[in-house]
Amino acid sequence: MPQALHRTLALCTAALCSSAWAQSGVTVSGIADSAVRQVRNDGGGSIRSLVSGSNSTSRLVFRGSEDLGGGLAAGFWLESGLALDTGATTGGTQFYDRRATLSLSGKSLGELRLGRDYVPTYIAWSRLDPFSHVGVAGSNNLGGNGPTGPIRAAFGTNANTTVRASNSVQAFLPGGLGGVEGGVMVAAGEGGSAANGANKLIGARLGWSGGGHGVVVATARTTNDLTGRDRPFRDTVVGGQTGLGPVKLTAAWRRFEHADATQTNLMLSAVYAIGPGELKLSLLRADLSGRVGSTTVSANDARQIGLGYVHHLSKRSALYAQAARIDNDGRGNFVIPGGPALTAGGRSSGVEAGLRHSF
Amino acid sequence: MPQALHRTLALCTAALCSSAWAQSGVTVSGIADSAVRQVRNDGGGSIRSLVSGSNSTSRLVFRGSEDLGGGLAAGFWLESGLALDTGATTGGTQFYDRRATLSLSGKSLGELRLGRDYVPTYIAWSRLDPFSHVGVAGSNNLGGNGPTGPIRAAFGTNANTTVRASNSVQAFLPGGLGGVEGGVMVAAGEGGSAANGANKLIGARLGWSGGGHGVVVATARTTNDLTGRDRPFRDTVVGGQTGLGPVKLTAAWRRFEHADATQTNLMLSAVYAIGPGELKLSLLRADLSGRVGSTTVSANDARQIGLGYVHHLSKRSALYAQAARIDNDGRGNFVIPGGPALTAGGRSSGVEAGLRHSF
Amino acid sequence: MPQALHRTLALCTAALCSSAWAQSGVTVSGIADSAVRQVRNDGGGSIRSLVSGSNSTSRLVFRGSEDLGGGLAAGFWLESGLALDTGATTGGTQFYDRRATLSLSGKSLGELRLGRDYVPTYIAWSRLDPFSHVGVAGSNNLGGNGPTGPIRAAFGTNANTTVRASNSVQAFLPGGLGGVEGGVMVAAGEGGSAANGANKLIGARLGWSGGGHGVVVATARTTNDLTGRDRPFRDTVVGGQTGLGPVKLTAAWRRFEHADATQTNLMLSAVYAIGPGELKLSLLRADLSGRVGSTTVSANDARQIGLGYVHHLSKRSALYAQAARIDNDGRGNFVIPGGPALTAGGRSSGVEAGLRHSF
Repeated sequence: MPQALHRTLALCTAALCSSAWAQSGVTVSGIADSAVRQVRNDGGGSIRSLVSGSNSTSRLVFRGSEDLGGGLAAGFWLESGLALDTGATTGGTQFYDRRATLSLSGKSLGELRLGRDYVPTYIAWSRLDPFSHVGVAGSNNLGGNGPTGPIRAAFGTNANTTVRASNSVQAFLPGGLGGVEGGVMVAAGEGGSAANGANKLIGARLGWSGGGHGVVVATARTTNDLTGRDRPFRDTVVGGQTGLGPVKLTAAWRRFEHADATQTNLMLSAVYAIGPGELKLSLLRADLSGRVGSTTVSANDARQIGLGYVHHLSKRSALYAQAARIDNDGRGNFVIPGGPALTAGGRSSGVEAGLRHSF
Repeated sequence: MPQALHRTLALCTAALCSSAWAQSGVTVSGIADSAVRQVRNDGGGSIRSLVSGSNSTSRLVFRGSEDLGGGLAAGFWLESGLALDTGATTGGTQFYDRRATLSLSGKSLGELRLGRDYVPTYIAWSRLDPFSHVGVAGSNNLGGNGPTGPIRAAFGTNANTTVRASNSVQAFLPGGLGGVEGGVMVAAGEGGSAANGANKLIGARLGWSGGGHGVVVATARTTNDLTGRDRPFRDTVVGGQTGLGPVKLTAAWRRFEHADATQTNLMLSAVYAIGPGELKLSLLRADLSGRVGSTTVSANDARQIGLGYVHHLSKRSALYAQAARIDNDGRGNFVIPGGPALTAGGRSSGVEAGLRHSF
Repeated sequence: MPQALHRTLALCTAALCSSAWAQSGVTVSGIADSAVRQVRNDGGGSIRSLVSGSNSTSRLVFRGSEDLGGGLAAGFWLESGLALDTGATTGGTQFYDRRATLSLSGKSLGELRLGRDYVPTYIAWSRLDPFSHVGVAGSNNLGGNGPTGPIRAAFGTNANTTVRASNSVQAFLPGGLGGVEGGVMVAAGEGGSAANGANKLIGARLGWSGGGHGVVVATARTTNDLTGRDRPFRDTVVGGQTGLGPVKLTAAWRRFEHADATQTNLMLSAVYAIGPGELKLSLLRADLSGRVGSTTVSANDARQIGLGYVHHLSKRSALYAQAARIDNDGRGNFVIPGGPALTAGGRSSGVEAGLRHSF
């Protein structure tokens, strides 16, 4: 707690000061989420494990903002991912792997953010995934960890820019534009290599939402020492959602492209609010096409179906149970994490039940 | 400080709200402990050093809980060990190496904890060590860092389960059982190896305390890729304590077993409360027997005697001074940490004086 | 927030308690600082990057103190450097690389600090650098990262003691000595090597300030396995400052010596307060002489000129812009960080503009 907050508190004992609270000081918050999971993979049997972050990634966050007057504010956000099952950080020595940003924002100007942040395409996509891109049924399972495709070709086994980028400047539209929102991100390559996380990225996102409905488009273009300057990795998202009483439906399309290889993901989902809980269904397909080098990858497709139920114990805590199954074609090896080795082209299935606590 | 706490504070300025404080928000706390130590080892001379955590391990803790109503609560605990002398984390990138847990608890149901936590045998043992398992006189000195015995045979130089286990589920008895307390822990092996910290463990603890007296038994069984499935590492603790006016006496017995090797530790201690301080005496013996592979280890025993004084400056801060000596037999090489190389079978002695500050 | 603070808060709702606030509890604070930088190096072209900590190093701090009564206090300070551009810690797994200390202090006795801390020479020097030893115009650019000289000869590429030392005990003079202040530091070598950060150091600092003027002298002597016991690395600082209305002028001299090599840095600076900002000018010279092994290093000198403007948005936040140029002689390769490879003896120039937010 900074000195400024100390001073505020001392003053607050004599008078109401709720507005002062919102304007200064450091907020320590986060999420602790853990589940018991079992994953069965064709050719490998099954493994039972304790996992972290299946409803929402476990994390610790330090953040704050300062009212500079005239509608202007400065703020920071440091967010560190953690594995609740082992106590490890998810980013190793990249402690604030989830987000490390500094902001200057104005009520009518929007926000300018510097640092490590989510890319526009991920912001658009993840909001459309009822499983928040994590857990046995999350759309992350059909990302870049499967068979070689455009993502692996452009980044090798290094960190890719399908979720976040370091060294970025991102500008967000202000609020109050009739439901229109969006942003533009530029990240510097800094003359580095993909191996040390240096990716040059330019991306943008534009969305509209109102009355329970929404649409969004986003795109990003990344180059690094592996892609070369003239063959960028491209990432495009188009999606929408609509509310029908207690049901929310989403459809999202995402295409990854690099050189001669393309991966197209399609996700359809439904969330049904029932009592203090919600029932979630997600259908996902990854369609690879083209070649990586001289190897044809187009047969290595996969489909995932996920089903889950979240029971809210309070605004901050929830119990959940979810199950999912991935069916691979060709030499596809998309899997639900935590299982034994999968025979390429086989099936991966998983179930889990856990507790998520926000703090 | 989470939003929920912000709101609580704003309300609290108008009325007393001590109960609300206990129910939400993140608590940042910890211990900073450092001492000047000198260790003399037979055959190596002596080394003077600044050390961390000799009265209580230096650490930073983030924790909190939420009252869910009806006697139920959700909570989390993230505890990171640190070396105050160098600024390093004790767990490397396993930042919350000391504890990373998520809990669901009920007043009459007890507590269910998921994550990385202390094993039942360590909980039982450490409470009986007046030196809290750390410092020149701590019982950790006669643990697995000495000559090859059952611990080294079962875990190599990897992390062992004599203190903590990752990937665990632990259930604790509720309070209000007439002084009876205990718990059961299961940790998943997850198909991994001892080298990456994957140990399959099952353990339990049962104790009773009342009127200054107490008894406890605890046991755990661990298998991993080094032990094999049929030759578990076994850890058993039996102990008791009794109070005689200003004196607290403890006796504790712990046996580590793997394959043909056994290590039996016996610890007798006395703590004498005098004024704002306490005088502590601990006698410890490690008795190895049997074989590791074809090598007989039974001659490599050791005895430790430790003496200390803690002077409490306040509830949170204390000055302390302590000394200890280890005498090894055979090829025994148990040492007080921080010294030069010891000639096997020799004596290791150390003194230290420091400050412990809880925050 | 520790329990003690919880209790204090509950009590504070009924009465004023500003003094209690200052006496207990954990303060979480820090700095988030990021800038867009361009560095051009002779022979290598230019690189544009997002950088961290150009006005003041980005960091997260946990600290607190406890009033023990009678003018005595115990306290701790844990400070972790971070790279806001990537989310990494600056110290890797040495998380609290900037400072990790435990203190016992008395109003009339001064302060005794244990742990990892700033060395006396750095404390003296850094206060005289208007660019706080960081950024394109900071005096760190002419430190040990340039051509081989006494620093490299004594420490190799390992951490050196020109800024901080681990395993240290430092005693500070109390306040109220008519502007006289200072301290003595001793750090243990612990029988280790420079490669694992073990340096044996003894140093002292003495200064006086009053009426806007001040003088300081400081010295330190370090030995490790690379220097040998009889050829210490020596670090000496002499400096002064004076205020002339809105202008503050400083002059500082620092000499690094090891064996037959010497590096002498001279820094002259002026800071001009204008409105809500300040204009800063710094002239720096590094003069190498003597030999490292059989290689003469005396031709490898360099000069740096730096200019900057800081515009304070509030007490906590500021915008800044700064530029600097380094001209190398001989085979000198001092550079402004973040650029491409420099041809030895060439010029390095950089500009940057950013935001610093203290929290």
